[in-house]
Amino acid sequence: MEAVRTAAEGTTASNTKEVKAFGTEAADAPLNQMHINRRTPTPHDVEIDILFCGVCHSDLHTARSEWGPSLYPCVPGHEIVGKVVRVGGHVSKFKVGDMVGVGCMVDSCRECQYCQEGLEQYCEPGMTGTYNSPDKHLPGNPTFGGYSESIVVDEHFVLRIPDNLDPAAAAPLLCAGITTYSPLRHWNVGPGQKVGIVGIGGLGHMGIKIAKAMGAQVVAFTTSESKFDEAKRLGADEVVLSKDAEQMAAYRGTLHFVLDCVSAEHDINAYLALLRVDGSLALVGAPEHPLPVAAFSLIPGRKSFAGSMIGGIAETQEMLDFCAGHNIPADIEMIDIQQINEAYERLLKGDVKYRFVIDMASLKQ
Amino acid sequence: MEAVRTAAEGTTASNTKEVKAFGTEAADAPLNQMHINRRTPTPHDVEIDILFCGVCHSDLHTARSEWGPSLYPCVPGHEIVGKVVRVGGHVSKFKVGDMVGVGCMVDSCRECQYCQEGLEQYCEPGMTGTYNSPDKHLPGNPTFGGYSESIVVDEHFVLRIPDNLDPAAAAPLLCAGITTYSPLRHWNVGPGQKVGIVGIGGLGHMGIKIAKAMGAQVVAFTTSESKFDEAKRLGADEVVLSKDAEQMAAYRGTLHFVLDCVSAEHDINAYLALLRVDGSLALVGAPEHPLPVAAFSLIPGRKSFAGSMIGGIAETQEMLDFCAGHNIPADIEMIDIQQINEAYERLLKGDVKYRFVIDMASLKQ
Repeated sequence: MEAVRTAAEGTTASNTKEVKAFGTEAADAPLNQMHINRRTPTPHDVEIDILFCGVCHSDLHTARSEWGPSLYPCVPGHEIVGKVVRVGGHVSKFKVGDMVGVGCMVDSCRECQYCQEGLEQYCEPGMTGTYNSPDKHLPGNPTFGGYSESIVVDEHFVLRIPDNLDPAAAAPLLCAGITTYSPLRHWNVGPGQKVGIVGIGGLGHMGIKIAKAMGAQVVAFTTSESKFDEAKRLGADEVVLSKDAEQMAAYRGTLHFVLDCVSAEHDINAYLALLRVDGSLALVGAPEHPLPVAAFSLIPGRKSFAGSMIGGIAETQEMLDFCAGHNIPADIEMIDIQQINEAYERLLKGDVKYRFVIDMASLKQ
Repeated sequence: MEAVRTAAEGTTASNTKEVKAFGTEAADAPLNQMHINRRTPTPHDVEIDILFCGVCHSDLHTARSEWGPSLYPCVPGHEIVGKVVRVGGHVSKFKVGDMVGVGCMVDSCRECQYCQEGLEQYCEPGMTGTYNSPDKHLPGNPTFGGYSESIVVDEHFVLRIPDNLDPAAAAPLLCAGITTYSPLRHWNVGPGQKVGIVGIGGLGHMGIKIAKAMGAQVVAFTTSESKFDEAKRLGADEVVLSKDAEQMAAYRGTLHFVLDCVSAEHDINAYLALLRVDGSLALVGAPEHPLPVAAFSLIPGRKSFAGSMIGGIAETQEMLDFCAGHNIPADIEMIDIQQINEAYERLLKGDVKYRFVIDMASLKQ
C-alpha cells in the first residue's frame, strides 16, 4: 500500500474513496447513477455527507455543454448542504456533526490580490468550480459536484449553515442567494431606495426577498401577469408587467438600482431607462447572445450596465447569517435524484417555484 | 415702444438685438451667414462678444438632424469663448471685460435634485442646450449657439477662463475638455492607476492629457499606427494598436478604467476584457447603433459599461482651473467661419488635429 501523501505532493488513487453520484457521460446523454472518487481529506479538508443539493440552471447548461465543452463525466450540483463527517488535522472552523454548505467554488489561488480581498470568485488565475474544473488533487479528473453522497472540500470554502435555517431551503442560498445578495450589497441597496428586480425565478425570488430585507422599496418586473400575487407574497411592494409600455413608462428615471435575473434574451435598454442618474443595472442572469445597448441609454444619466458573479466566501457566510437573521429561506420543491432529468425539462419551461432541491437520501436507496 | 419686461414675464421682440450668425435652414443645406435675435440681458444675464468657437462633432450631427429632427434655423457652437460686454443688474460673478466661456448648457430648472447637486447636465425636466433647445426667453425660437457675434446667457451658466489659458485653445475645453474630465474625475482616476483612452481625436486627445495630468499611467488605443507618435506627444505612456489581437491580449485584466471616445461602431467587449475586477468603461462618444455587449464581458469581474455626458457647471469651472494649473490647452486648428462647411467635411474624415476653432472675427468682416 502506498503511503498517504499530502495534497501538495499530489494524491494517488489509493487515497480515494468511491462514492455514488448522479451525472452524465456526454452532452446529449441523460443523467444516470455512476460512481466517482473522492479524495481522503488532507489536513485542511472537511468531508461532508451531502443531505440536500439545489438544482441551478448552470447545472443544466454544464451537463449539456451549453457554455462551451464541459469535462465528462459531469456531476453537477453547487448548492450543497450536509453534515461534517470527518475533518483533517489542521481544520479549525468545523467539527464532526456541523451543518455546513458548499457553493460554486471549492478552491482558488489564495494569493492574488482578489483572493486576498475576499473576492475568490474573481481569482486571477481562476477559481476552482465545485464541478467541471480540473481537480488539482486528483489530476486528470474534473471536480464533481453535489449530486453525490459526499464531498471533500478545503475548510476555507466551507460555509456554516445557521441553526435556524431549514437545511433543505438553505441549499439554494449557496448560489441563488449569494448571486443576488452580493450585487445588492455591492451597490449599497438599502432604506430610501427603489430597487427593481427583473424576472421572478430561482434568482429573482431570492432577489425580491433579500432586497426587501435590506430595507429597499422593491419593484418586481415580470412578463406574466399570473406572477403578480406571487411577487407580492415574496415581498415586492410593486409589480410591473414588463411588456406593458405604459406601466414601464411610469417608472422612467425612478429606480436606484436594477438587479436583472433574466437569462433569456430581453431588452436591456428598457430597464436602463428606468434608472435614476448614476443608477446601475447589474446582470446576474447570463443570456447566451450579446445584448444590444444604446449609447444614449447610458450617456444621459451617467448610468452603468454591470455584471456580478456569486460572491466571495466571507460574503457568502455574511449572506447566510443575514438570511438566518431575517428568516429568509428559498422557496423550494423537493425531488428525488431519480427525477433530475424530468426536473431539467421542467426548469427549461420555468415550471418550478422556485428552486428544485434534491433530497440526497434518495441516492442512497 | 413696449416696456422692457423681465424674463419671468416673457420677452417681446423689441427686447432683442439682431446679430450676425452662421447657420443652416435645413438638414441638407450648407451653413450660411444669417441674422438672429439675441435677447436684451435680464438682471441675471451676461452679454458676451464671442471671440472663438470650437467645432464639435455634435454641431454637425445637429445641423444635419442626425440625432433626430433639429429645430431650424440651426446655429451650432457650444465651445464658446468671449469677452463680457454687458451685465444685468444682479450679476455678481462677472464684469465687463472678463474673459468667459459658455459650454453645452445655457439653462436648467435649478430646482430638481440633480440641479441642486451641481449635475445640471442631468436636470430632471431637461437642461437647455446652448443650441437646438426651445428658448424660454424668446418663445417659438430655438436657442442659437456660438457661431454668432454675441450671446446672452444667465451668469450661472457662464464660466471664467483663467488668465493663463490661451482663449482660442480654451474653447474646446468647454465641451471636449469637460466631457473627458468629468468621467475621469467621477471614476476617481489618479496615481497608481492604469487608464485606457480609446480613440485619439477631439475627445481622446483631451482624455490623454487630462488623465496624464491626474497622475494615471495612460494607455492610448488607436486603429492607426500612424498616431503612435502623436499619442506619446500628447502624454500617453503606452500606445496599443487596437486591431492587433496580440497587443490587445497583453492588456487583458490590467486597466482600472477605460474612457471610450469613439463615435464609430466598435467592439466594446474587446475593451471590457482589458478591465480589472470592478473596472468601468465609460463611453463618451455616441455610436449611432446599439453596441452588442456579452453578459460574460461583465459578469466575471463585476465590470461596468457606463456612459457620461459633459459635466456640471461647478465641475466645468473646476476643469478649466485644472487645465490652467496643468497648462493643458486643446490642440487646435484655427479657421474662419466661411470655412465651416469644408471643416465639417474634414471632420467626417477625421482630418483635424484635434479641434477646429473658429476665429469669430471672421464673421464681422
